[in-house]
Amino acid sequence: MPLRYGENPHQQAEAWIDAPAWGLGAMRQLGGEELSFNNLVDADAALDLVFDLGDRPACAIIKHTNPCGAAVGATPADAFRAALDCDPVSAYGGVVAFNFSLDAEAADAVAAHFFEVICAPAIDPVAREILRQKKRVRVLEVPRETWSPVPGRRVERPLHGMTLVQDRDIGFAELDELQVVTRAQPTPAERADAAFALAVVKHVRSNAIVIARDGRTLGIGAGQMSRVDSCDLAVRKAAAAGHELGGSVAASDAFFPFADGVERLVAAGVHVVVQPGGSKRDAEVVAAADVAGICMLLSGRRHFRH
Amino acid sequence: MPLRYGENPHQQAEAWIDAPAWGLGAMRQLGGEELSFNNLVDADAALDLVFDLGDRPACAIIKHTNPCGAAVGATPADAFRAALDCDPVSAYGGVVAFNFSLDAEAADAVAAHFFEVICAPAIDPVAREILRQKKRVRVLEVPRETWSPVPGRRVERPLHGMTLVQDRDIGFAELDELQVVTRAQPTPAERADAAFALAVVKHVRSNAIVIARDGRTLGIGAGQMSRVDSCDLAVRKAAAAGHELGGSVAASDAFFPFADGVERLVAAGVHVVVQPGGSKRDAEVVAAADVAGICMLLSGRRHFRH
Repeated sequence: MPLRYGENPHQQAEAWIDAPAWGLGAMRQLGGEELSFNNLVDADAALDLVFDLGDRPACAIIKHTNPCGAAVGATPADAFRAALDCDPVSAYGGVVAFNFSLDAEAADAVAAHFFEVICAPAIDPVAREILRQKKRVRVLEVPRETWSPVPGRRVERPLHGMTLVQDRDIGFAELDELQVVTRAQPTPAERADAAFALAVVKHVRSNAIVIARDGRTLGIGAGQMSRVDSCDLAVRKAAAAGHELGGSVAASDAFFPFADGVERLVAAGVHVVVQPGGSKRDAEVVAAADVAGICMLLSGRRHFRH
Repeated sequence: MPLRYGENPHQQAEAWIDAPAWGLGAMRQLGGEELSFNNLVDADAALDLVFDLGDRPACAIIKHTNPCGAAVGATPADAFRAALDCDPVSAYGGVVAFNFSLDAEAADAVAAHFFEVICAPAIDPVAREILRQKKRVRVLEVPRETWSPVPGRRVERPLHGMTLVQDRDIGFAELDELQVVTRAQPTPAERADAAFALAVVKHVRSNAIVIARDGRTLGIGAGQMSRVDSCDLAVRKAAAAGHELGGSVAASDAFFPFADGVERLVAAGVHVVVQPGGSKRDAEVVAAADVAGICMLLSGRRHFRH
């Protein structure tokens, strides 16, 4: 599949589709302009995230490979509105993905904003008609059942003079694998939010912090060189979008090397922190959580994404 | 080359070295522990950055694929101290690379801090002895002349069911290609800083903003979902490390979609902004620079790095 250019206009590029077709290779483009290299990268990230968000309707909005909002909801439209609400400024021009068939209500909600790509496992006829009006927007149907990678199929990362090859990072800690290590115990709703935040944080570039409540992200701290900066960033992004963080849950993609990051989250109102654990200072970090009276859960599973 | 594990402990991985050997494949490990997957990714990023910083001694410190400091200096030790000074908190445990032979002074300066990996084209015998004391630190010699990719050799990016293939993003706009679009003109020193900041910003995850002065980075805004957030982040990071930004230069990896990012940089003291241009609002962005009395340079070359 030829592409106009690669990540930047001075790079030539093309896409090779696996046979038999699966994942993005099984997509059907229903309308809109030609897909760019960056559209494909972001559509891949968006679909991989929503398909990790379980069986309720879910929506994710991606910009530059990072989510700027993700949510589950009673309907696809609800999930979209909640995802958009996380950071409407960044969402502009992004890639939106759903894990559910797109209906007219969701299509109307999405069509009211500018996105470059809209992806869903299926798009019902009325929704299709609504999206047809947005002539430039790329509309993709990607069946959910095609998303599973062939077992054992690995991914390559090219360096200079060397190619790293590794297993995909598939799956994440489930609700019943989360271990409470503080005196404070999470409510069932907090546990569910912890599992949701963990599923999202896996799809954010490291270092990554995701703050969530009621099945929606409130602040996402992405791509920082220190964990405490990711914590600050998630809190500031939430505040900038007007989200109050009382009783929220924060997930971290890797352990806290010091207690400072947890302290910043607590100061902002976060009540539950979920993280893999494994730092030599875990005891200090858990003690800080106990002093603050918050709850900490360990997942035992790191999700660096570089 | 076997690896203990991949990006995360639950992912199996290995490294395939190109023949004939070049780049990281041509490295010689002089000491320290086994290299991890993430060490290799960061060493690759660090060397690729310093080898883009010209013929003066240069140093870069990488965390999670992003630079948390880069500088040129009269000596490798000078360059290291200036690079570390950008963000000493994030630098802890990072990967340091030099484009020059490492001498005793630089080795002493580096050995006073904790890094996981130290890379240089060559390491002189006294420096080698100094670094031998740091038993766990991985010390790599990677000859500069081996860094050039084979022309036409392309890089792959695996998605789900599809692999994107593109040219490497080699080179960047040189000093004499930068076009002044404002009434204010840059001084020769500002032009040199603009070229330096552009070389660094190419190696920062998008959206990326790098603020620099006197051949050293002062604030790096990495991996954000909106450009104005990257501007804010670069300014805040500089302030947190105690850097005053008067008369500094900022580089952006892609165009400014609105004038707001430039306005934030100007408010912080930035006096020159260099960016590719190409937005439909370029005129508005340049006008904002003229109103502020700062200088804007266009490079004509975008460097997204996702």
